[in-house]
Amino acid sequence: MPETEKVIELAKRRGIFWPSYEIYGGVAGLYDIGPVGARIKNKIVQLWRKIFVEENSDFVVEIETPMITPSKVLEASGHVENFTDPIVECQKCHKIYRADHLIEETLRLSVEGLKPSELTNIILQKGLKCPSCGGELGEVRNFNLLFSTTIGPYAGYVGYLRPETAQGMFTAFRRVFESTRERLPLGIAQVGRVGRNEISPRQGLVRMREFTIMEVEFFIDPEDKDVPQLERYWEEGFHVLFKDAKEKGGDPVRVKVKDLVSEKLVVNPWMAFWMATASRFVKSLGISEGSFYFEEKLPHERAHYSSQTFDQIVKVMGEKVEISGHAYRGDYDLSRHSRFSGEDLSVFKKFDKARVIKKRSVILNRDRLRQEDKDFQRELMKLISDKKPEEVEIMIKAGGELMGRKLSDFLSVIEREEKEHGIRFIPHVVEPSFGVERCLYLSVLNAYREKKDRVVLSLPKEIVPYHVAVFPLLEKDELKERSRKIAGELKQKFEVLYDESGSIGKRYARVDEIGVPYAITVDPQTLNDGTVTIRDRDSWEQIRVNEGEVLQVLEKLFSGADFNMILGEAKR
Amino acid sequence: MPETEKVIELAKRRGIFWPSYEIYGGVAGLYDIGPVGARIKNKIVQLWRKIFVEENSDFVVEIETPMITPSKVLEASGHVENFTDPIVECQKCHKIYRADHLIEETLRLSVEGLKPSELTNIILQKGLKCPSCGGELGEVRNFNLLFSTTIGPYAGYVGYLRPETAQGMFTAFRRVFESTRERLPLGIAQVGRVGRNEISPRQGLVRMREFTIMEVEFFIDPEDKDVPQLERYWEEGFHVLFKDAKEKGGDPVRVKVKDLVSEKLVVNPWMAFWMATASRFVKSLGISEGSFYFEEKLPHERAHYSSQTFDQIVKVMGEKVEISGHAYRGDYDLSRHSRFSGEDLSVFKKFDKARVIKKRSVILNRDRLRQEDKDFQRELMKLISDKKPEEVEIMIKAGGELMGRKLSDFLSVIEREEKEHGIRFIPHVVEPSFGVERCLYLSVLNAYREKKDRVVLSLPKEIVPYHVAVFPLLEKDELKERSRKIAGELKQKFEVLYDESGSIGKRYARVDEIGVPYAITVDPQTLNDGTVTIRDRDSWEQIRVNEGEVLQVLEKLFSGADFNMILGEAKR
Repeated sequence: MPETEKVIELAKRRGIFWPSYEIYGGVAGLYDIGPVGARIKNKIVQLWRKIFVEENSDFVVEIETPMITPSKVLEASGHVENFTDPIVECQKCHKIYRADHLIEETLRLSVEGLKPSELTNIILQKGLKCPSCGGELGEVRNFNLLFSTTIGPYAGYVGYLRPETAQGMFTAFRRVFESTRERLPLGIAQVGRVGRNEISPRQGLVRMREFTIMEVEFFIDPEDKDVPQLERYWEEGFHVLFKDAKEKGGDPVRVKVKDLVSEKLVVNPWMAFWMATASRFVKSLGISEGSFYFEEKLPHERAHYSSQTFDQIVKVMGEKVEISGHAYRGDYDLSRHSRFSGEDLSVFKKFDKARVIKKRSVILNRDRLRQEDKDFQRELMKLISDKKPEEVEIMIKAGGELMGRKLSDFLSVIEREEKEHGIRFIPHVVEPSFGVERCLYLSVLNAYREKKDRVVLSLPKEIVPYHVAVFPLLEKDELKERSRKIAGELKQKFEVLYDESGSIGKRYARVDEIGVPYAITVDPQTLNDGTVTIRDRDSWEQIRVNEGEVLQVLEKLFSGADFNMILGEAKR
Repeated sequence: MPETEKVIELAKRRGIFWPSYEIYGGVAGLYDIGPVGARIKNKIVQLWRKIFVEENSDFVVEIETPMITPSKVLEASGHVENFTDPIVECQKCHKIYRADHLIEETLRLSVEGLKPSELTNIILQKGLKCPSCGGELGEVRNFNLLFSTTIGPYAGYVGYLRPETAQGMFTAFRRVFESTRERLPLGIAQVGRVGRNEISPRQGLVRMREFTIMEVEFFIDPEDKDVPQLERYWEEGFHVLFKDAKEKGGDPVRVKVKDLVSEKLVVNPWMAFWMATASRFVKSLGISEGSFYFEEKLPHERAHYSSQTFDQIVKVMGEKVEISGHAYRGDYDLSRHSRFSGEDLSVFKKFDKARVIKKRSVILNRDRLRQEDKDFQRELMKLISDKKPEEVEIMIKAGGELMGRKLSDFLSVIEREEKEHGIRFIPHVVEPSFGVERCLYLSVLNAYREKKDRVVLSLPKEIVPYHVAVFPLLEKDELKERSRKIAGELKQKFEVLYDESGSIGKRYARVDEIGVPYAITVDPQTLNDGTVTIRDRDSWEQIRVNEGEVLQVLEKLFSGADFNMILGEAKR
């Protein structure tokens, strides 16, 4: 059994995740997050919120917008046109395949970014047939991955499930900007579900038809390259596979944040800020720096809105999974929504002090012009209507004529000084975007250990489903009562799993498998001397401490103390 | 301007909520939750999780299931058939109305629960016309409120957005039951978005097309009436409008939990448990006991799956809004899913000790039967195939015959003792269900105060968007620097809003309007003696404390100390 299969089996058995609607045979790409998985997932979301939103709360806010999106919004965003995958249907059994994947898997050709007609040609030339029935394959066509629906009782009102939360932030940008005192940079964060009607979802939580995204749309003034917030990451580093190296088959190299910025390897310093933040977040899931890198996308691999993209790739248990994407969306989205909605989405930037601008204007000698015929009047107006004052000036100076008459008799150009207090511009956008279920899946894969034929999920303490388990050693009323009392007290500060039935070995195995870091056991000795044992998930070592000290010891352990240190103290 | 309009205006201006996709003219029934609203909403969800899940963590777990639901699941649940509202279309302008609402609003008739044909008759008899153009109205028909879509690339695979999270818990019940050690009662909780394609959504967060539900499907053994968990609520009470009183136009009466149970006013004691829990939750949103009651639904008002329902109604600012529903769903859902999926969803209940059961069986005298012709053999088998042993016994005793032959020659009935170790049964379900956005809306309405022409949002501390604001009094570098330092320290323990620009009056007004309970101001005196002011949102009183004491004072205030008490201490 491949290792990832073992994890999927564990996930089903222990309530981490499993295919949705199993009693009806399941639906590809839809997964339930079980009782243990939901606790881990909620912790992952909280951790992301802390690192991405709360720590930057002076310039990042969170909002929530609907999944249901009217078609106009996704026409403006380009998704109705571009959010497609190529599909091909067997003419005999009518099975539908994702054409690029079929070619890549069967013929081992890289065809990313090719057009449907090009894919059709490859299928014809190579004589590719239906892998299921051997029938002829038809023409490749684009299939739109938006889930479509109808809003309200009128048939024509088309809506879609959003494929990303981003459009909610763009359409709400002006409101959020106004309600947060009109300052840039402004990050608008959202955690929310999205739908992507994948043609052939993979098993597990990697390519799902409905999942949760955590993303920030970070609105900036592209002229403002001063990012004092970057200081805290200046000396930090991570691995990046740049596009040039990638094209030549090279490897990721470790770069420092300061070099990313000073060597202009990122199109804007904020790209480096969010990549550094993402590194920190991924490390806090227990994934070490050596297990991930950022991969720069080649132009034909990038989404239609992006001018630079880095995917953050995690390698664990032989899998390579994109855990986050970092796109420089520029002014694409706000400009498009401005155009499609007819609303001005630009912002005003006040200059520190008003700038004096020299401005040329064309002056018309109206008295003189009125003496000429209508035809000439019209032609002269036509001539200057689409010209800048500077161009008109050049024509006059060159002694230019129109219908035999000298332009300088009718036109002159003057220069005036004007004060400009600021300018309007469309903010640019940097977007770091995480899939929550992928974070959950990769955290679990990464934490999976086998120890003496048993499974231990060594999750970091920040994302464990429960902090501590409390067990009576035996099914005796006295021990149960004492255990419940201890569990009740610990619940004031910790998330406690209380379990009183079955063999102690099975209960230990269960909490190891779901990653509970410590287990307190109440045994007959407790009734004599008031001590209980604390067992460590990873080392299986135990220490005895007084009942009254359990809370303190746990507090130490959760504020960074090492179990072995506590063990040493107890032994002394 | 009606008061609720003022709140809606405040909500837009201050980033609490506003119509989605405003730049495209909005979509009825879809709302964005803004930066301030999202913080309050997240707190409300956390509070619900604490009260409904964490405090009951020994028997309640949380899961997460998809919005996209294959049609089979909602056929089984009855939603494809029953989740409808009556609509009527104008034959002239083709505008579509919700028929029952149109009749109720125009004719002041109560028509809840009437069939489409009955509504059509009323429209004809009363000569009701299109309110918009005066045209003739057509026939009333049922409109299904499920948002429908297609899953995957094949056209026939219909899916819907779930209209409640409940079906996710029912279809996952067996998995969750197994992964949590097969014990009842078992509560499966979920917080998630749902879609309801309302015909005419109201303004505001009350009837939305997409919203968030927090609900528990609580699986119980209906025979087990022993609910020790109820003890903690035994003496508590709340107002209930029972169905008998309601029919007679009566008022809600205050009942105690113990009376609800002992007088069998609820069909199962767990109904009282969750109603008491819901009361506590609603009170923790700042809504006093006098502002809500539970209303028992009449049989024709109940959903198709429910045998008893109470709606929890909040009355605030002249609005009456259902904040939660409490339905006894019995075994409806699990039985239906068992039938539609062909999977056994019953659970096994082990008896404390095995029961001895007397069991009758029919014994066939095969040797004797073999001597008869095939026709008789067949007819005899047919005769007994669908009869219970008791029925066969009566026929034998009555000297019954078949084809002229005596039954007693071929058949006899014996009684044996058998041990039964337990039985299988389908668990029943109690469902408490809250709409999150309604909680947000009602909390804000309830907290809205006007004080000297200014607005104060007196939210309870558990659900404030920020704990504290920090302001430099003036735009001076020294004050800013000192303020940022204080804000940074407070951020270790509290959610801090830091704001350094604009007049101090405007900044106070802003934090009052979004409900921030305290504001720390750094002023020139701070630079001399190291003291800052703490201002109270509700009384606008200020105290001066040493910079170093701010954290402690805030900790006191957030653990229940009264501002006036602190004020008194400071003055002494």
